[in-house]
Amino acid sequence: MIKTDILIIGAGPTGLFTVFEAGLLKLRCHLIDALAQPGGQCSEIYPKKPIYDIPAYPEILAGDLTDRLMEQIKQFEPGFTLGERADTIEKQDDGSFIVTTNKGTKHHAPVVAIAGGLGSFEPRKPQIENLANFEDNGVEYIIKEPELYRDKDVVIAGGGDSALDWSIFLSDVAKSVTLIHRRNEFRGALDSVEKVQELKNLGKINLITPAEVTGILGKEQVTGVVVSKKGEEPYIVDTDHFIPLFGLAPKLGPIANWGLEIEKNAIKVNNSLDYQTNIPGIYAIGDVNTYPGKLKLILCGFHEATLMCQSAYQRIHPDKKYVMKYTTVGGVTGFDGTKKEAPKAVVKAIE
Amino acid sequence: MIKTDILIIGAGPTGLFTVFEAGLLKLRCHLIDALAQPGGQCSEIYPKKPIYDIPAYPEILAGDLTDRLMEQIKQFEPGFTLGERADTIEKQDDGSFIVTTNKGTKHHAPVVAIAGGLGSFEPRKPQIENLANFEDNGVEYIIKEPELYRDKDVVIAGGGDSALDWSIFLSDVAKSVTLIHRRNEFRGALDSVEKVQELKNLGKINLITPAEVTGILGKEQVTGVVVSKKGEEPYIVDTDHFIPLFGLAPKLGPIANWGLEIEKNAIKVNNSLDYQTNIPGIYAIGDVNTYPGKLKLILCGFHEATLMCQSAYQRIHPDKKYVMKYTTVGGVTGFDGTKKEAPKAVVKAIE
Ligand SMILES: Cc1cc2nc3c(=O)[nH]c(=O)nc-3n(C[C@H](O)[C@H](O)[C@H](O)COP(=O)(O)OP(=O)(O)OC[C@H]3O[C@@H](n4cnc5c(N)ncnc54)[C@H](O)[C@@H]3O)c2cc1C
Ligand SMILES: Cc1cc2nc3c(=O)[nH]c(=O)nc-3n(C[C@H](O)[C@H](O)[C@H](O)COP(=O)(O)OP(=O)(O)OC[C@H]3O[C@@H](n4cnc5c(N)ncnc54)[C@H](O)[C@@H]3O)c2cc1C
Repeated sequence: MIKTDILIIGAGPTGLFTVFEAGLLKLRCHLIDALAQPGGQCSEIYPKKPIYDIPAYPEILAGDLTDRLMEQIKQFEPGFTLGERADTIEKQDDGSFIVTTNKGTKHHAPVVAIAGGLGSFEPRKPQIENLANFEDNGVEYIIKEPELYRDKDVVIAGGGDSALDWSIFLSDVAKSVTLIHRRNEFRGALDSVEKVQELKNLGKINLITPAEVTGILGKEQVTGVVVSKKGEEPYIVDTDHFIPLFGLAPKLGPIANWGLEIEKNAIKVNNSLDYQTNIPGIYAIGDVNTYPGKLKLILCGFHEATLMCQSAYQRIHPDKKYVMKYTTVGGVTGFDGTKKEAPKAVVKAIE
Repeated sequence: MIKTDILIIGAGPTGLFTVFEAGLLKLRCHLIDALAQPGGQCSEIYPKKPIYDIPAYPEILAGDLTDRLMEQIKQFEPGFTLGERADTIEKQDDGSFIVTTNKGTKHHAPVVAIAGGLGSFEPRKPQIENLANFEDNGVEYIIKEPELYRDKDVVIAGGGDSALDWSIFLSDVAKSVTLIHRRNEFRGALDSVEKVQELKNLGKINLITPAEVTGILGKEQVTGVVVSKKGEEPYIVDTDHFIPLFGLAPKLGPIANWGLEIEKNAIKVNNSLDYQTNIPGIYAIGDVNTYPGKLKLILCGFHEATLMCQSAYQRIHPDKKYVMKYTTVGGVTGFDGTKKEAPKAVVKAIE
């Protein structure tokens, strides 16, 4: 059982920044995310694209935003349960909550902050018979641990940035990489497309287009896939792994059944105070919530997280009164023992 | 008469970011500030100190924050009335407002956003007879235009960062700089104190401590000050300018008489929707407002500004419906003709 002060569901920008604001209040956080990496939409959908409306960043790549947030919260040592979906929540007699993931990992906390964005990112799966039987036995939809593919034969399917970028990355790790796409044209960043072309020319990526994977072979573990290329007989490609990268789509999913008030596919919160839901102790912040005038913007999630943490503090410490101190004045003391602090002014005679 | 869409009172971080969010909605802004430079508390009180809780900035100097915001809003060509205090507001028959400063400058806009922070920064003045008679005739409390002092004799009084830093700066501009402080010890950044020591040793700054200015000489224009040094007879120092830099303290000031609901020295707003005050068309955002759970933090002002602009848009364009587009997707088109835009993905065959 993982124990923490604030259990955050969703490691997008809102969830990440919550760790910082909670840390200032000496509250510890743990984050659950269905994705293999933090950053939410920013890292899954548009990591290499610029955002222009983050205050005081005339321009910042979405991936860099995630990196900066990770750097900012480092001092507060957040825990992560990645690649798992928060599925169920049970309220305990003492008012705390136990949240369990689809893989059975249990988390216990007095406060739950849902920062689930547009929902849990779930892979779009190709229509292939028996595909489900091979999940985690050679079929993966997200790459959590690239080392899994060391010296293995890998087949990747897809025509977008993920398929391109992972083909490039794994071409250095795997024994062989085969990239299969139903069109000749790929859609992605220019340098990714050009790099794949180069690796193909060097024989480091096998390219099969226009083609589709239409079957899987193997007993328990994948041993090969059936490839159907236009105008040719289907044939077998031996492989240890089949990785369909057709994108991940967010689904509010199981959270919709937690007894929370839902409106427009989002969770209603009390925006006139603390972004709490209809269940005391459960907050909803960032894209996942709704209230009159709501804007699904990153900077709004930051504000909501900050106000929410104050309320969470009162819930966890009903007898204490928190007196806010500016970070500039009080510094930032991490759980890791480090302290950031402004240089003090000197008082010094001039003679 | 200066005309604009949103008249912003206060050019602190909240007011500055409002320009950006308004610009995305194609609304133009003009800012009034009592200070000579934008940045509000950040530039007046702690420009060289680090802030740690600006989202995605593990650390940023308050002065750099201001610079980044100025850079971000440049495309939207904000107008500035600096060094003047907004004193009166008159509602027009058509629901718009005319705001007049203490120097008589008039501004006309359909929407007023008060981003006045802790109030208009007003100088702390020394108790010297007839001081007021010489204001703007040789006595200045804030330095708006350093060129005014070129080849002039200048007396600066004060013992903090402003007195130190302006003495350093003007030692290169003025004919002579005399720095007077009632103690031998100065309080400021170490390198400022050391630099003044160095310039004093070089004879480029005359230092008189512990001493006070106790009188002013001149007819209409300042011609000298009376200096009282401990244990000595008062004596005269000839000078063209006397600049007492004893700090600026914020005062809500005239805004308190505009008919707005005031609570805890701040303006009450509707935080459950759009941060509007009790007078439709006048909003209050950032440190200057109050509502249940309010935190006087920079990041909160950013959020409030953003929601407020949506409401202002509806007020200005009652028949239009604004459909929000992510900056990443739609880019940012400035009033200056420039456009920032994400590089488009390519669709390209790999052969
Ligand atoms: C193409 C594009 C461009 C954009 N441009 C801008 C822009 O310019 N400016 C701007 O402000 N915003 C922009 N946005 C929106 C911005 O990305 C979102 O506002 C932001 O990501 C929301 O952050 P969040 O942390 O609330 O949610 P998300 O980033 O959506 O993160 C939520 C996370 O929660 C996880 N999750 C949800 N439910 C569960 C569960 N049950 N179990 C486990 N994990 C779960 C998801 O997997 C996800 O990783 C853009 C979005 C897109 C798609
Ligand atoms: C030492 C110190 C450290 C701080 N550290 C942090 C920190 O770490 N993190 C954080 O988030 N915040 C911090 N703050 C607070 C932060 O600076 C404020 O929240 C922020 O400046 C508020 O921005 P604002 O734009 O709302 O108002 P302000 O910055 O106060 O700007 C308001 C401006 O309006 C002008 N104004 C007001 N009335 C009038 C008028 N009638 N006519 C003309 N001009 C007028 C004023 O002159 C002023 O320039 C700190 C503050 C101080 C003093």
